[in-house]
Amino acid sequence: MSIEPTTLTLVDPPGISAEEFKAVFRHHPAGVAVVTLRAPAGPVGFTATSVISVSADPPILAFSLAATSSSRFAVEDAASLVVNFLAADQRHVAASFARRGVDRFAGTTWAPLPTGEPVLEGATAWVRGLVEDRIPVGDSLLVIVRAVRASRGDTDGPLTYVDRTYHRLGEHSRLP
Amino acid sequence: MSIEPTTLTLVDPPGISAEEFKAVFRHHPAGVAVVTLRAPAGPVGFTATSVISVSADPPILAFSLAATSSSRFAVEDAASLVVNFLAADQRHVAASFARRGVDRFAGTTWAPLPTGEPVLEGATAWVRGLVEDRIPVGDSLLVIVRAVRASRGDTDGPLTYVDRTYHRLGEHSRLP
Repeated sequence: MSIEPTTLTLVDPPGISAEEFKAVFRHHPAGVAVVTLRAPAGPVGFTATSVISVSADPPILAFSLAATSSSRFAVEDAASLVVNFLAADQRHVAASFARRGVDRFAGTTWAPLPTGEPVLEGATAWVRGLVEDRIPVGDSLLVIVRAVRASRGDTDGPLTYVDRTYHRLGEHSRLP
Repeated sequence: MSIEPTTLTLVDPPGISAEEFKAVFRHHPAGVAVVTLRAPAGPVGFTATSVISVSADPPILAFSLAATSSSRFAVEDAASLVVNFLAADQRHVAASFARRGVDRFAGTTWAPLPTGEPVLEGATAWVRGLVEDRIPVGDSLLVIVRAVRASRGDTDGPLTYVDRTYHRLGEHSRLP
């Protein structure tokens, strides 16, 4: 007995390719953050353009992390972490923390909180949070974090990323 | 026997207020989307600045929706929806779909897909997806959507939102 491909197609939508999906999101702007945490072997950090506020009361944020990320095991073991929201003059920090096989903290000034998580100097803000959940979704982890401490800096504005380029927002980009 | 407040503080972190948390995310830039779906009473749509790519293979996105949103019940009942990624000249669409007590579709040109979900004209792209999960997180729902169809338009760039203002990205905002 043979299976009819046409019937299968009708029941199960064909879906879109990873490339098509990535192309859509490549053109979707995002603020840039570096997530940092304290691991037994030392500080760990990675650039994230998927940080969103989920709930304000209680204050909860989320971000996604590829299962292939070098930071994955550190995030799986972490009870807490810090989200550093990068300023427009920190594109070099964003690039450093997206690089593999380097000391990502080398070119950045940072200091640990009393609880151990690194805070990067010059960010527009940072939030310390407790990891509440790590939900496997497709080829990634969706990390749910309850905010317990926050600080806002005195910087000139946030770093924005779209279509593999970094942007500065301000009066020059504002729509009337 | 009295409870010692100091001990409680050490065990349970005091957390931050909803206002502090909102202030941090108000300065975090985001692309702007309108999520649309077909409900029994007609088309439903709402503006979302929390749409993120979670997984590329399989292609899965997520967004958060406040439990108090007028679209909540429609999203709870929906098997599928469309995410319309707004272009820089669609700030009026973003504003319309964030308004309460109005016909949000009135000022917008749209057409239903064969599957019923409204697609808004002029967006940079749209993705149709199947709702895979709705996870209650704090005062919101985190909605997990598997993309099954996508289309990209020929528009001049995406709409960006930060600090209650809309922005256009381009060469004028690009960092060297």
